[in-house]
Order: sequence, then structure tokens, then C-alpha cells
Amino acid sequence: MKFYDCKTAPSPRRVRIFLAEKGIDIETIQVDLASGEQFSDEFRQMNPDCVVPVLQLDDGSCLSEVTAICQYLEACYPEPPLLGTTVEERARVTMWNTKIEQQGLLSMADAFRNSAKGLSGRAVTGSRGYEQIPELAERGRQRVQQFFARLDGQLADSTYIAGANFSMADISALVVVDFAAWIKIGVPDKAANLARWYGEISARPGAVA
Amino acid sequence: MKFYDCKTAPSPRRVRIFLAEKGIDIETIQVDLASGEQFSDEFRQMNPDCVVPVLQLDDGSCLSEVTAICQYLEACYPEPPLLGTTVEERARVTMWNTKIEQQGLLSMADAFRNSAKGLSGRAVTGSRGYEQIPELAERGRQRVQQFFARLDGQLADSTYIAGANFSMADISALVVVDFAAWIKIGVPDKAANLARWYGEISARPGAVA
Repeated sequence: MKFYDCKTAPSPRRVRIFLAEKGIDIETIQVDLASGEQFSDEFRQMNPDCVVPVLQLDDGSCLSEVTAICQYLEACYPEPPLLGTTVEERARVTMWNTKIEQQGLLSMADAFRNSAKGLSGRAVTGSRGYEQIPELAERGRQRVQQFFARLDGQLADSTYIAGANFSMADISALVVVDFAAWIKIGVPDKAANLARWYGEISARPGAVA
Repeated sequence: MKFYDCKTAPSPRRVRIFLAEKGIDIETIQVDLASGEQFSDEFRQMNPDCVVPVLQLDDGSCLSEVTAICQYLEACYPEPPLLGTTVEERARVTMWNTKIEQQGLLSMADAFRNSAKGLSGRAVTGSRGYEQIPELAERGRQRVQQFFARLDGQLADSTYIAGANFSMADISALVVVDFAAWIKIGVPDKAANLARWYGEISARPGAVA
């Protein structure tokens, strides 16, 4: 297998931490997003959506989308489990991972990509350019803060986001919190549960990935 | 188990078709989104994000998010499999389902919710109101058309979206195509592969759900 990564980008970082938590060492290729390598013919053949991460399997076929890549890796390397063990726990990890993607990661992407000077004409990831919408950047900022309040509420009764065990949901949320620092949004002062969780998760060895 | 649905809404329709394809008969409760029943204290306790669908388990706990609900149902009712059978096929269904959610369903939601008169101040689903952004409605329309072209390309070499077998990815994409009719976007004339697929999938008995 080969992992197509970009060391500076938030989405593939979810896979990097996942690999680190499992102790998997895998051939990794850096894709230079700054110079537009994701739009090359070679990369398009692996993922026509022109985004990292991509996992190339041994038969040459490719998987994209973080959730699909991590599901595949979990099946190949089950220990330690990061997607839950029982049927119910697995569903809760998926539930939280989806909420974190849709309420957290996509809100952050709206906030960042619709305001960053270097992303003019590139407000949406992928193969086609779209102009920035400043109002959407502001909505994204508000939604990130709403999301942090939501996580804080969940973490009042729960050690980890999806329950008693560390999971992919914690990895995804960690990436959102660190991504939010790019637009100078931190963990709110009053979000004590989120702050407690963030301290614990960022201290894990895998968090440096 | 109890399924909290709204018969007119696209997201829970994904679960309705999933249940119909498996022949599962489950107690179903209609949530009246038009009158704001999703914001009631009772519903918030089941899903603080104030959206359907919700699956209430026999112990009273609740699952939200379509992907999580369908993963749980697949484990309880494995036949016929709708999330893939081999490790690789399962990952491909997840990959396509994620692409369809993020490129198709969310683009449609952007287009519809940021333009529909009845959704003024409610441009984002969930517990908090956001004003409509007309530019985002237009971007959403463009992205839906981009998504249809993407699906058409995938279906040139593939009977179903995620490969040789009917899956959740086909259900999700069917819901997007039908949802797009709400804003008068149909399958493009030149998208012959998508048209072939759409004809087949909409003729399945489960599609009426």
C-alpha cells in the first residue's frame, strides 16, 4: 500500500494520526498541493476529485475519502480498534465522525477557504474552481463556534467523544480544533469539558502526526 | 427499535429505501418538520442536532446520522448486504457514500436551503438559525451539476456506483437526483450513463419509499 499525503493539510492528518495510533508504518508520498500537483493527470487517475488523502492498494486501485481509507486500514490492522468494537459502539463512532465532518470540518473549510488570500478562486476543494463567498466564511466561523459548544456538551458526560474509548471521532475532532487555530478560533474559555479533552488528546504521541 | 422519520424529507428517505430494500418493517414515527417538532425538548433529547432521521434502540438510546443508522441496521439485518461484503468493497461503498454526501447532498442542501422562501433564516439544518446566502445557492446549483457529471463518468465503467453490486451508494445518489428536481435540475441530456442508471434504480420497488 502507498499513502498519498500532504504533511501540511488537515484532512490527510486524520489518516496520519490513525496510522500513528496503530503503529502502522506505510510508504508515504507527499503531494505538493501548493504547486497544484493534485491536478496532474497522474493524480487525477488515482482520485478524479483531486484531493488528498489517497490510499493506493497493492493491486494499484485507489481509495479516497478519509472514512473509507480508515475503514480499510482498520480491517487490515484491527489493533488497537479505533472504529469501535461492538455493533452499537461502531455505529456511535460513525455517528460522531459524521457530525464532526459535517458540522466541524466542513464549517472550518467554509471559513478558511472562503477567506484565505491564497485560495481566491479555489473556495471549494476539488477539480473545479469556485469564487470565494465572504458571507460564507463568516457563517463558517459561527458554525465552528457552535460546533465547539456542541462537543463541550457531549464531553460533559463522556471521557471520549463517542463514549468510553478513544476512537476515530477523537482524531477527527482534534484535527478540527487544530485547524481552527488557522483562523484564530481557539477552544472557548467556558468550554471546560472540551479543554480537558483537548489537553488529553493532544498529549497522545500520535497527535504529532 | 423506533424510526423517527419525515416522509417528505430527503435525508430520512435514504433510510426508508434502505429498510425497504432489506424488507425490514419497523415502528415509524413521523416528525413534523414544518411545524418545528424537531426543536421540541422531547426531540432534542433524542438528537440535540434537531434533524431526522433518528433510530431509537430498544434501551432507549438514540442514533442519528444516516450512515450510522444504516451501519447499525446492516449489522442487525445482514441480508441483502447493502454496505458491501469484502473489505475492499465495503471501503468503496463508504468512499462513494461520502462523496455523494459531500459533493451531492450538501450541494443540494446549499442550493435549496439558501433560496427557498420558506427557509428564510433557516439556511442550515439544525438547532441554530442562519440567514440565507444567495451566492451559495447558486454555487450549490453549479456543484450539483458538477456532481452529476462526476457520477456519469463513474457509471461509464460500472453497473452500480460502487461497483458490480447495488449498495447504499446507489440509494444515496438516487435521493440526490430526486432532491435536485425540487430546484428543477434534472439528469443532463448528455449524461447517458447516469440516465441509464437512474432508470434502473428508480424502477426498484424500494425507490417508492
